[in-house]
Amino acid sequence: MITVIAGGVGAARMLRALLQVIDSSEVTAIVNVGDDLELHGLRISPDLDTVTYTLADAINPETGWGLVNESWQARSMLEQYGGVSWFGLGDRDLGTHLYRTHRISEGADLTTVTAEIVSAWGLGLNVLPATCDRLRTMVTLASDDPSNDHFKSLTAGSEISFQEYFVQRHHSVPVSAVRFDGAESCQPGPGVIDAINDADLIVIAPSNPIVSIAPVLAVPGIRDALINRRNVVTAVSPIIAGAALKGPADRMMSELGHDASVLGVAALYKDFVSTLIIDSKDSRQKKAIQDLGLRCVVTETVMSKPGVSESLALTVLAGANL
Amino acid sequence: MITVIAGGVGAARMLRALLQVIDSSEVTAIVNVGDDLELHGLRISPDLDTVTYTLADAINPETGWGLVNESWQARSMLEQYGGVSWFGLGDRDLGTHLYRTHRISEGADLTTVTAEIVSAWGLGLNVLPATCDRLRTMVTLASDDPSNDHFKSLTAGSEISFQEYFVQRHHSVPVSAVRFDGAESCQPGPGVIDAINDADLIVIAPSNPIVSIAPVLAVPGIRDALINRRNVVTAVSPIIAGAALKGPADRMMSELGHDASVLGVAALYKDFVSTLIIDSKDSRQKKAIQDLGLRCVVTETVMSKPGVSESLALTVLAGANL
Repeated sequence: MITVIAGGVGAARMLRALLQVIDSSEVTAIVNVGDDLELHGLRISPDLDTVTYTLADAINPETGWGLVNESWQARSMLEQYGGVSWFGLGDRDLGTHLYRTHRISEGADLTTVTAEIVSAWGLGLNVLPATCDRLRTMVTLASDDPSNDHFKSLTAGSEISFQEYFVQRHHSVPVSAVRFDGAESCQPGPGVIDAINDADLIVIAPSNPIVSIAPVLAVPGIRDALINRRNVVTAVSPIIAGAALKGPADRMMSELGHDASVLGVAALYKDFVSTLIIDSKDSRQKKAIQDLGLRCVVTETVMSKPGVSESLALTVLAGANL
Repeated sequence: MITVIAGGVGAARMLRALLQVIDSSEVTAIVNVGDDLELHGLRISPDLDTVTYTLADAINPETGWGLVNESWQARSMLEQYGGVSWFGLGDRDLGTHLYRTHRISEGADLTTVTAEIVSAWGLGLNVLPATCDRLRTMVTLASDDPSNDHFKSLTAGSEISFQEYFVQRHHSVPVSAVRFDGAESCQPGPGVIDAINDADLIVIAPSNPIVSIAPVLAVPGIRDALINRRNVVTAVSPIIAGAALKGPADRMMSELGHDASVLGVAALYKDFVSTLIIDSKDSRQKKAIQDLGLRCVVTETVMSKPGVSESLALTVLAGANL
């Protein structure tokens, strides 16, 4: 049994790689919900959907999020009304949010609804939200952010939601802090702690350490459960040669005082990770990572390259001595 | 100034006819919200939307509701999930519901949001929901209703929402009672009482008396305001030769003990209506209607016939001696 701690895009690719070499019934993903939002009355869980859509081969290749064969009629109407349209909701994607919102209004928890959605896409893995409770990643702006066509002016020190940072501002503004609102009072989702305790191997996917992995760890009990299983926890670095493949992980790490490098990742993860897989480009850092008390495996990690995803998956499995 | 008490389809046609002969700035529609529902987290106001879409020449001609050039991608996804899809939400139409829901979540009342939507469609009339508060038309089944693919079995005496009756069961089940949930505690929407008090002419549109007009009258203050203005209130009968042009008005009137005829309409309306316009097919009933204390005007009222809508509009205006 393999459990993967997952954000969105990077985690979805890691999961897809693992599913090339192991049966889906052996895999559980514990997915970040700090990016979730309520918009237009709808419950939206971007990372859960990115994982599901990617594994179903239904992710929109043009955008990297949302569904393939998408149309945008609802959004066009919203724009006609002058409504809030910066968060892209495609018509097909809306079907997912309508379903999720309806089921939750009927009393189903997010874990149950997620399982229903994953099953409807014909997927065999177990996808678990880190928590069913409200957990929201909040970002503090490091500097004044002038208004533009889409949003109002904010001063340095203002706190905004993750999606206001990530989507509305295209993660192009510096941040001074990240906080997980609701973390103190939320509970791990059903099955989450068991999936950590019972796993033969736990993988920290190559997701943003600050806003994808950290909010999962912020759910009380999850970080401690990982620390207890440290000897079977392998992380794949999302930072390659000082940069993230996608998204603001490198900048966020720097802005928040971490080293935007595999060493910075190792420092953030060393309490609950025993093996760090880094890209060949970072091979010179292997010794320094070992000096932090981690095993270090060097391999190709850019999964968009032909053949890499399967070999990386095998390395992940082998690195854990399974 | 003309104020029209309105349901959905019939009222939208009456309003369209009136707008052929008078300026839209002279017209206020007070629209039924008893059909409203919350579904998938969204605020849906079918009669408000039917009026708006019809007057904007954007109503879907194939369905009679919803928007033209519609697509159904969200609904297809909902069906893939096994979700609730009996209430048809087209992709473009969803944009309206997303906008309404979002604005209400921001604190705007339904009157404000409705004005924004009407304005975005370039319409000049004043469209007012009868109330901004929760008012729901509930229908009691007269007989057992066996289950089918789309809904569960119900016994006689069960109370269901209007849309469960109208859309889910295609208004094909007999009813024993209609109730307006929330009527006791709701307030007339902003401008509604003024629109009645200040009107030179008030028109009761040819809408279903039981489930379109009655829920407007059920809002405390509206019926009394109409009674006070009875001498300028003209109704257009929705019943022609014992039948409704569309929908279950005739059956509902019979089932609830009213005469499904222009006489039945006259009896329901006589306290607050001074002039009843009936179709030429019902000309023999003129005397009986007059005997009930109403003026009666006989004319062509089937607005789908060429030329009728404009002449009916002129008759409505003339019948009130304006």
